[in-house]
Amino acid sequence: MVDTQQVDSRRAVDELKELAELTGGPGGARRVCWTEEWRNAREWLKGKLAEIDGVEVETDEAGNLWATAPGESEDEVLIGGHMDSVPEGGWLDGSLNTIAGLEAMRVLAPQRRPVTLRLVDWADEEGARFGRSLLGSSATAGSLDPDSVRGLTDRDGVALPDALAENGVDLDRMKESHRQLKNARAYIELHIEQGPVLERMGLPLGVVLGTFGVERHMVRFRGQHAHSGSTPMDVRRDAFLAAAKSALAFRDDAASRDDVRGTTGIVNVNPGIVTAFNGWCETSLDQRALDADVLADMLEKAKEASEKAASEENVELEWEKVWEIEPRPFDDDLIELADEAVQEVAGSSHRLASGPLHDAAEMAPLMPTVMLFAKSLRGLSHTKEEDTPEEDIELSVQAVHRLAQKTMQWVGNR
Amino acid sequence: MVDTQQVDSRRAVDELKELAELTGGPGGARRVCWTEEWRNAREWLKGKLAEIDGVEVETDEAGNLWATAPGESEDEVLIGGHMDSVPEGGWLDGSLNTIAGLEAMRVLAPQRRPVTLRLVDWADEEGARFGRSLLGSSATAGSLDPDSVRGLTDRDGVALPDALAENGVDLDRMKESHRQLKNARAYIELHIEQGPVLERMGLPLGVVLGTFGVERHMVRFRGQHAHSGSTPMDVRRDAFLAAAKSALAFRDDAASRDDVRGTTGIVNVNPGIVTAFNGWCETSLDQRALDADVLADMLEKAKEASEKAASEENVELEWEKVWEIEPRPFDDDLIELADEAVQEVAGSSHRLASGPLHDAAEMAPLMPTVMLFAKSLRGLSHTKEEDTPEEDIELSVQAVHRLAQKTMQWVGNR
Repeated sequence: MVDTQQVDSRRAVDELKELAELTGGPGGARRVCWTEEWRNAREWLKGKLAEIDGVEVETDEAGNLWATAPGESEDEVLIGGHMDSVPEGGWLDGSLNTIAGLEAMRVLAPQRRPVTLRLVDWADEEGARFGRSLLGSSATAGSLDPDSVRGLTDRDGVALPDALAENGVDLDRMKESHRQLKNARAYIELHIEQGPVLERMGLPLGVVLGTFGVERHMVRFRGQHAHSGSTPMDVRRDAFLAAAKSALAFRDDAASRDDVRGTTGIVNVNPGIVTAFNGWCETSLDQRALDADVLADMLEKAKEASEKAASEENVELEWEKVWEIEPRPFDDDLIELADEAVQEVAGSSHRLASGPLHDAAEMAPLMPTVMLFAKSLRGLSHTKEEDTPEEDIELSVQAVHRLAQKTMQWVGNR
Repeated sequence: MVDTQQVDSRRAVDELKELAELTGGPGGARRVCWTEEWRNAREWLKGKLAEIDGVEVETDEAGNLWATAPGESEDEVLIGGHMDSVPEGGWLDGSLNTIAGLEAMRVLAPQRRPVTLRLVDWADEEGARFGRSLLGSSATAGSLDPDSVRGLTDRDGVALPDALAENGVDLDRMKESHRQLKNARAYIELHIEQGPVLERMGLPLGVVLGTFGVERHMVRFRGQHAHSGSTPMDVRRDAFLAAAKSALAFRDDAASRDDVRGTTGIVNVNPGIVTAFNGWCETSLDQRALDADVLADMLEKAKEASEKAASEENVELEWEKVWEIEPRPFDDDLIELADEAVQEVAGSSHRLASGPLHDAAEMAPLMPTVMLFAKSLRGLSHTKEEDTPEEDIELSVQAVHRLAQKTMQWVGNR
């Protein structure tokens, strides 16, 4: 039986406001990881956790904070969040997860539990200062290559290893935090959606099917620029028009599929003057899908479309891969439990993929994982305008509590 | 009867090389108007003209140089050219016209003529130093508004009126040069094509039907940018995709018509990053046609196409006119005479419109006007790579001589 009598979701809203007061301002949240204000936020969280009887708090080698409420078994259910924010960020991105987990711990720690419950506050989810996101969770997951981040510096020239050391973290020992996952059996995380889907459907909460895989490429076209007056239409080799055709094809393909993305963002032309057509154009393509086969097919179709456009416009074509990550689908059983939890507190639910990455993406390959989304207003995040109605924040806190209970039962019964 | 025995077209090629030696270098031609090297070129030309018996030379209030070989009637046929070039320009743009005219004067001045023949070397056709092209010819035509150029400065901050004064020209008296046209009855001009048409047809020479009218606009689209991962395809308001659709429609419309142009040159997007689609995009549209009704219809169709694209992509649309000029069609009779001249020297001819403007465009509204084009290699001009085979240069000099004779007869018989 699920007991939600003691969940004080209003207290979670008040604590989010308290945190915003402590580490925010007119420009937005300022909890950039490895800075003093982030440490202040951490101390504030530790103070809250210290008030819960039977909860032990520790910081691992990667700078992640762990709060543990031991249960009848060593098997663990993890609730994840991150206190850090981007500069001039919103009041909910990261902190909502952590505060909801804090409230769940408050209610569940005093109760008899079949398994151990832990809250983890991941370090440097945003990568706002050094440009590498999911730093703490990837170290613990084991996917971080320390050498790939050793040379990173912030805008003041401070090296990442030095900033880590200032926070008691040794880059070359971060992966030792992997031991924290020894008994982990399931991972759950709440986050604001950062997109418009739930708001448009009029729903406060949704269940996340996984994080999209991403194919990111530069697509470059080279023809020959010439004068807009003296060059007849039929002899032109207009690189921009080939790029325009391709970008439309990329979008049309994505729009014809179920819940994927295909985006042209960067558009640069040369010479880019009014009296000539363009002999060179580069565009970026960012494709996302939850199914690896679909993503591969999208990329193939995009290449075909760009080849057709380049051929029709008599220009040369070059693709350059910029980045890729495979899809991280979440666990079917946990998706069902999350759906139950959302239906119980909100009446109805919706399942959707996550465009942005989250720490949950680092956990998904290691253990059954699921996420909940809370509605974002106007799809905004990473800005002070980021917001979610307070009644929906309360529902999300209640849903995390229910999902934690259900997941503990599910782990206990396996 | 046309007598071409005395045309020494080889001498014209040699004189073009002599001029290039005098006022050019490894970077290209340096005869920027109102500078010392342009004055040197002018003095060189004056020296050549002084050697022709019966030719009077004068400079008008606009700085244009006139050489006159009086005929049996005061009615005049004008041969136009310009000695000035862009910085690092080619050896033919402008000077070919003048040298061909010089050679025609040499041959025709000693002969009995029904009408007066004049060579005019227009000042500042290029506008390379102050940004206003056709300065001398527009002053003489009467279309120049002195106040519209009074504030122009070069890159060193020198004001146009001061540079003019240094060359003996008073801005406010330039239009008095209009008196030079009192007896003018026809105007002919040779120029390199600056485009690829004749080269692709394997022809050395062509006859110009007129200079294109131009409609030049900025076309701006405004949607709302958002994250490439979290925003589903069907809710996007992607300004770049609307611009891409429009640009393709502009081109397709131009390509479906006979010898017009439709060019998207400037393309700017915002935010222009890989992880977002673009909420704002501006493009330039440059449309050209020889027929004013066609040009007006092209603009109307372009506006319709952009409205359709904006509507389909759910973005806002704004047009801003940047510049326009009406078409300047040349004279039908002179086009026929030019065609005869070209056929006689080259065996075959082709009629085409001019994309770039020329001094002839200033004369066309005032008197029967026509131009000849000489083939450009690779369509290049305004660069030291500008070139035309020497044998084709010779043919163009011969054609100017024949066309001058035919035009004098035509004027004399009217």
